[in-house]
Amino acid sequence: MKFRRSERLIDMTNYLLEHPRQLVSLTYFSERFQSAKSSISEDLAIIKETFEQQGIGTLQTVPGAAGGVKFQVKVSDEEARSFISELCEVISAPDRLLPGGYLYMTDIIGNPSIVNRVGRLFASAFGETQIDVVMTVATKGISLAYAVANYLNVPVVIVRKDSKVTEGSTVSINYVSGSSNRISTMMLSKRSLAEGSKVLIVDDFMRGGGTVNGMIGMLEEFKATVAGIAVLIEAENAEQRLVDEYLSLIRLSEVDEREKKIKVSEGNYFKK
Amino acid sequence: MKFRRSERLIDMTNYLLEHPRQLVSLTYFSERFQSAKSSISEDLAIIKETFEQQGIGTLQTVPGAAGGVKFQVKVSDEEARSFISELCEVISAPDRLLPGGYLYMTDIIGNPSIVNRVGRLFASAFGETQIDVVMTVATKGISLAYAVANYLNVPVVIVRKDSKVTEGSTVSINYVSGSSNRISTMMLSKRSLAEGSKVLIVDDFMRGGGTVNGMIGMLEEFKATVAGIAVLIEAENAEQRLVDEYLSLIRLSEVDEREKKIKVSEGNYFKK
Repeated sequence: MKFRRSERLIDMTNYLLEHPRQLVSLTYFSERFQSAKSSISEDLAIIKETFEQQGIGTLQTVPGAAGGVKFQVKVSDEEARSFISELCEVISAPDRLLPGGYLYMTDIIGNPSIVNRVGRLFASAFGETQIDVVMTVATKGISLAYAVANYLNVPVVIVRKDSKVTEGSTVSINYVSGSSNRISTMMLSKRSLAEGSKVLIVDDFMRGGGTVNGMIGMLEEFKATVAGIAVLIEAENAEQRLVDEYLSLIRLSEVDEREKKIKVSEGNYFKK
Repeated sequence: MKFRRSERLIDMTNYLLEHPRQLVSLTYFSERFQSAKSSISEDLAIIKETFEQQGIGTLQTVPGAAGGVKFQVKVSDEEARSFISELCEVISAPDRLLPGGYLYMTDIIGNPSIVNRVGRLFASAFGETQIDVVMTVATKGISLAYAVANYLNVPVVIVRKDSKVTEGSTVSINYVSGSSNRISTMMLSKRSLAEGSKVLIVDDFMRGGGTVNGMIGMLEEFKATVAGIAVLIEAENAEQRLVDEYLSLIRLSEVDEREKKIKVSEGNYFKK
């Protein structure tokens, strides 16, 4: 069956969006649509132009016999800025305050539309970085990690603080929680992470950085390396930050329980 | 600025895929592209035809002044069958066997491409059902729940078996684990679920159905109702199933630890 250009454009758009960072050969599309490679090339030029113009992402063309195209999520600074400022407003609502100065975040990390946009931003920021795996710690970071991994097209591994789950032999390490200075344990299934993996660490919240630092220690056990660290919110008033290099969307600078005030601002996303 | 048809088709495809089950008015597209509604209508007819022909989903047209279009994921039986049979093969690999007859599933629920396809299948099966929220229990079901919620465009709420997480006051219930006959506790943040919500319960694995049954009990506490139950794998040899109405992709009929054999087949997905 023969496809018209309009049909090809729609189906190719869907296909590329579903296969980010994957090299798709012209031959694949040419066979899928029973169309000449020259027509496919023209289609891709139109898609590339529209993706870039509409802020959907970029389409990288790899020339040669083994070549093809690769879609990569790319968020414009303008879009990122407007989303972060929107998110700041959501997060600073006084009714988010919980006893102990914690913030209620359950609705935010359970909202696919917010989570996807966070994922887009991180995937865009790490678009040029080689990443094999996204790692997070159960349970609050999972939805964010999964969204980032989705746009980067890599698997997620989840470090746990309990060992109730049946996943075979685990590697377990101790780490110091930065905020409470308490020793805790985290573990990871042995077969879930291959040696030498380049890992993007994702979490919802970073105070002293103890948990993130724990995950870095875990990577060492697996002879894996940190490709990047991305957190949704960083707390500014951490006396001693255990982690230097990270990307944050939002900085939490003050929580006043008595006055019911939460002060947040843009994280370091644009400074990197 | 004026958009050509090809550009509109690409951008509209992306927009609709990102906003499933949401009514998008013709006016919105007409203003977005500075194009006449008649042109937008023609665009949508092409998209509808291609989506349906290529197995991407359906485009429902709502007529009238308040009308527009709604995209809904729809998976063909053929695609579902081929995916389930592929998944059966992956799951029955002998090296998945863990002590106690458990299966190693970490790589499967951490693989975005598998998880997304599971999400598509469930979202397609419940496409005609009114669903406000997807619920799961931490931690293994989270990625699946999130994928389903993504395609249904609804939030996720996560029931926990511990209370370490800071999310304000919680409702906690006791439930009987079907397999071990032991009493356990699960809890849910009070403000995470609105009264009267119609809830799709999603989990990775169901043996006796104790956990799912616990979640149903939790819904009663919130005066919410079950809109459906979807599990990736059901174990066939559960002596007493606490739950009747559910959808499963895969049925696990036998695990022989000594012979290292795992027997799986298609679940009841097509019987519903």
